[in-house]
Amino acid sequence: METAIAFASVGLDRADHIRGDAEALGNLMNWRARLLKLDGIDPQIAPDGGLDWGTLADADPEAELVFLGLMGDGPSASRPCFAQVAPSLIGSVAPPNPRLWAAMGMLSPTDLAIYGGARSLVDWHARHRFCARCGHATKLAKGGWQRSCTNTACNAEHFPRVDPVTIMTVECDGEMLLGRQPRFPPRRYSALAGFVEPGESLEGAVKREVLEEAGITARSVQYVASQPWPFPSSLMIGCHAYTDDKTITIDETELDDARWFTREEVCYAMTGAEDGAFIAPPPFAVAHHLLKWWLEQ
Amino acid sequence: METAIAFASVGLDRADHIRGDAEALGNLMNWRARLLKLDGIDPQIAPDGGLDWGTLADADPEAELVFLGLMGDGPSASRPCFAQVAPSLIGSVAPPNPRLWAAMGMLSPTDLAIYGGARSLVDWHARHRFCARCGHATKLAKGGWQRSCTNTACNAEHFPRVDPVTIMTVECDGEMLLGRQPRFPPRRYSALAGFVEPGESLEGAVKREVLEEAGITARSVQYVASQPWPFPSSLMIGCHAYTDDKTITIDETELDDARWFTREEVCYAMTGAEDGAFIAPPPFAVAHHLLKWWLEQ
Repeated sequence: METAIAFASVGLDRADHIRGDAEALGNLMNWRARLLKLDGIDPQIAPDGGLDWGTLADADPEAELVFLGLMGDGPSASRPCFAQVAPSLIGSVAPPNPRLWAAMGMLSPTDLAIYGGARSLVDWHARHRFCARCGHATKLAKGGWQRSCTNTACNAEHFPRVDPVTIMTVECDGEMLLGRQPRFPPRRYSALAGFVEPGESLEGAVKREVLEEAGITARSVQYVASQPWPFPSSLMIGCHAYTDDKTITIDETELDDARWFTREEVCYAMTGAEDGAFIAPPPFAVAHHLLKWWLEQ
Repeated sequence: METAIAFASVGLDRADHIRGDAEALGNLMNWRARLLKLDGIDPQIAPDGGLDWGTLADADPEAELVFLGLMGDGPSASRPCFAQVAPSLIGSVAPPNPRLWAAMGMLSPTDLAIYGGARSLVDWHARHRFCARCGHATKLAKGGWQRSCTNTACNAEHFPRVDPVTIMTVECDGEMLLGRQPRFPPRRYSALAGFVEPGESLEGAVKREVLEEAGITARSVQYVASQPWPFPSSLMIGCHAYTDDKTITIDETELDDARWFTREEVCYAMTGAEDGAFIAPPPFAVAHHLLKWWLEQ
């Protein structure tokens, strides 16, 4: 199941040991190195339908470069891969757009994983130019897996951020609780979701979100699947839970609606049908896999 | 199992709906409100062995206050709880110390959860005074669950950080792989662990860490338990995996040693014995629960 989830495949050998070795990293920045071609922060698709790659000569001379990892097997056969933090991206926030979704639909699981990781990392650099501790400028370090404060009285080290998010289906009497956010397309329902907060376990976060958003007391939380979600950098942690009381009280600031759906309704919606009780979450989303997992139980 | 894990209990009603409601929040800052007493960022223990609480009158007039949540049942019976970001904490980094571990040993699961969440949040405020996007000063917002950039040309919103970490045991032929970090006390072995990186699933992160640190190819990763770890703000995600090849190659920059232990050796160490093959991770750590879970299988 793991490999079928968008962005969740293993893209490159991340070659962690090289990041902190300035000499080894410098040696990799040669004519064999590949530069991920980006349109702003969106992917560029090659004629063969895969990610488009150039060489380091294609990089903006002003751009910071992040080391994504090694592609291919064996020390002599593997090729170092980089992406650039283009000056035009600095400080900007780029939400996903329809053109992006279309481009992503063409990519293989491996390419999607490479792109997702690169997008999160480049976006983080573009929006973390300054030290949150002292306000001075930061500079890229360790091949792009760190930024370091340039103020010698501070020297704080900052690391790329990953935000854990719980996303959960809830079951009672063979039916499933799903909700719809105001931003969803018409008739789309999906799993409830929310960020894990400081001081919470995964199970605690699931129970809090379900109670906050739908007024439902959840129990017996179980983990199902996870997905890195590069908008901008979440770790989606998919869970399934149970409840003994189906009474819904929605939080109207978060949800338009929340409802119970029968197994038949979920099954029909998951065929891609748009004339059923609701429209299912798209295959890109880990919510899609939560519904699929439930139908297979 | 969930409730037995340190920091993982539900401490307070986080009352998310109040955070963004400035009027409601202001109304809670009255004589009934409680202020968590901290010694720097360490807990103060009351004569009854619980967390020590004061009133808002005990707060430093210069301190920012974070709203932790509501304690007790019912709107009239519940008491709002706060913690302060004391000016003395600003910019500092406070690692755990032996006095802290001793104090934590006295606290109930609920108090430990309240303290852990408060510590992560206060520490985040102390080390995030400036906007990572533009470098201007930030100010506390939404009861301490946000900081906002004061530069009107930026207006970036920043949220408390939670770093997902995978921590994993690996099994082969009924034996378990454990490692020791250089900072561990003598003869202590524990589960391998590492931060989840941008672009990784939970399962991908587990496999990468095991390969990087011990040279072991892991498969069949399963989730076991999670724990918020407030040093400074991790979500520990405990997993168990399998391998078919026991050949260990350790990463000497990360580990002093990694070894396979028999079920008997793990069982004996988990009694607290210090004369066995190794000394087990302490009950505070989710690694302790991973070993316990394995012995119960």
